[in-house]
Amino acid sequence: MNPHTVKTYGEELDQLSAEVILMGGLAEAQVADAVEAVARRDVALAQSVIQRDQRLDELEKDIERKAIRLIALRQPMASDLRKTVSAMKIATSLERTGDLAKNIAKRSLVISESEPMSGLTRSIERMGKLVSSRLRDVLDAYKGSKLDIAQAVWSSDTEVDEHYNAMFRELLTYMMGDPRTISACTHVLFMAKNLERIGDHATNMAEHIHYEVTGEDYMNERPKLTTMEP
Amino acid sequence: MNPHTVKTYGEELDQLSAEVILMGGLAEAQVADAVEAVARRDVALAQSVIQRDQRLDELEKDIERKAIRLIALRQPMASDLRKTVSAMKIATSLERTGDLAKNIAKRSLVISESEPMSGLTRSIERMGKLVSSRLRDVLDAYKGSKLDIAQAVWSSDTEVDEHYNAMFRELLTYMMGDPRTISACTHVLFMAKNLERIGDHATNMAEHIHYEVTGEDYMNERPKLTTMEP
Repeated sequence: MNPHTVKTYGEELDQLSAEVILMGGLAEAQVADAVEAVARRDVALAQSVIQRDQRLDELEKDIERKAIRLIALRQPMASDLRKTVSAMKIATSLERTGDLAKNIAKRSLVISESEPMSGLTRSIERMGKLVSSRLRDVLDAYKGSKLDIAQAVWSSDTEVDEHYNAMFRELLTYMMGDPRTISACTHVLFMAKNLERIGDHATNMAEHIHYEVTGEDYMNERPKLTTMEP
Repeated sequence: MNPHTVKTYGEELDQLSAEVILMGGLAEAQVADAVEAVARRDVALAQSVIQRDQRLDELEKDIERKAIRLIALRQPMASDLRKTVSAMKIATSLERTGDLAKNIAKRSLVISESEPMSGLTRSIERMGKLVSSRLRDVLDAYKGSKLDIAQAVWSSDTEVDEHYNAMFRELLTYMMGDPRTISACTHVLFMAKNLERIGDHATNMAEHIHYEVTGEDYMNERPKLTTMEP
């Protein structure tokens, strides 16, 4: 006997959003902790990020199961259906965000075994703070159905790309200057790429919120930085 | 008036699978062409891959819309519901596969401007052929609900990882040997990473097929290569 069957329709919808918000808080913490593990060469913190990722996987499966059940049994229409679908889609973005944070944590373990590269890890820290603030904003937008915040996150996507491109150039210089650092630098390069992709997920979530609130399928063409670093 | 409303339930389910199979064929071609564009330094082919990606995005949206509509209006149960959900999930994996192929095509344009690195691009070609065959197999498994093929794709995931790790080592050697190639090599590194991720999507699709056919949520713990290259 499934306890949810005694819930009302509205309660089920609210529970779905609440679970997405919970998941969002955890994903945000995973990103912040992964970046801190890099900055502080904190092996224990990195390992806890890696271990905690599973919780996000479970939450995503649970949200998806509940959303599909709700669609099948309650046949939500219009804004309720959009709310249910965007919960599913945002949960998917948050699960991917967690995977990327986990990967950053894993790489932090690898580079913690080589010489510190303070300049580079400080850049990762700066980029991490920027991406974390995007995540925080988009989750606020989701909580309060705030279109203006979602729009702001969506428009600021290029800022993350600029950080990434700057890091890419910084890494090339570093590697060319001291080829012995190339192996460690490739890990930093992937960390930066992961942060950029987390920024993309924040932008995608902003689009889902826009769709949920307005019913318009997509925002205008996303602002993308033209760059030699595809 | 939506033409689907006059379709029968069975017809709608079949149409959903047919659209996923169509999408799969296109995604497979995108990967093969992207890799060929790298190997042949074929700018025109790379540009056509980039331009064709949009079709995959449209197909994913269409499959998702139809699947959600089917869940809401037909309330499929048991195996029909699994079939509908896995169509949605496989479409998502195929859309991501297309994005990764598009990114490989974009990077091929960048490296086509620098000195040929035949050894490296041959390795990309080999890895691309392996990943393409995984995609082909998993799509065959989907078409025929063939559990054994899905299982084989799922178990062979480590083979792609081994290729990636070998390429990673090859790239490090190349970069250290001639630091002027570092910039171009980072693009090849991301190409290899993209192919590895396409391989992961093939594995995910195999899991969705397993779920669709058996109703068991997941296969046993996925075989993952332990590696210094997370």
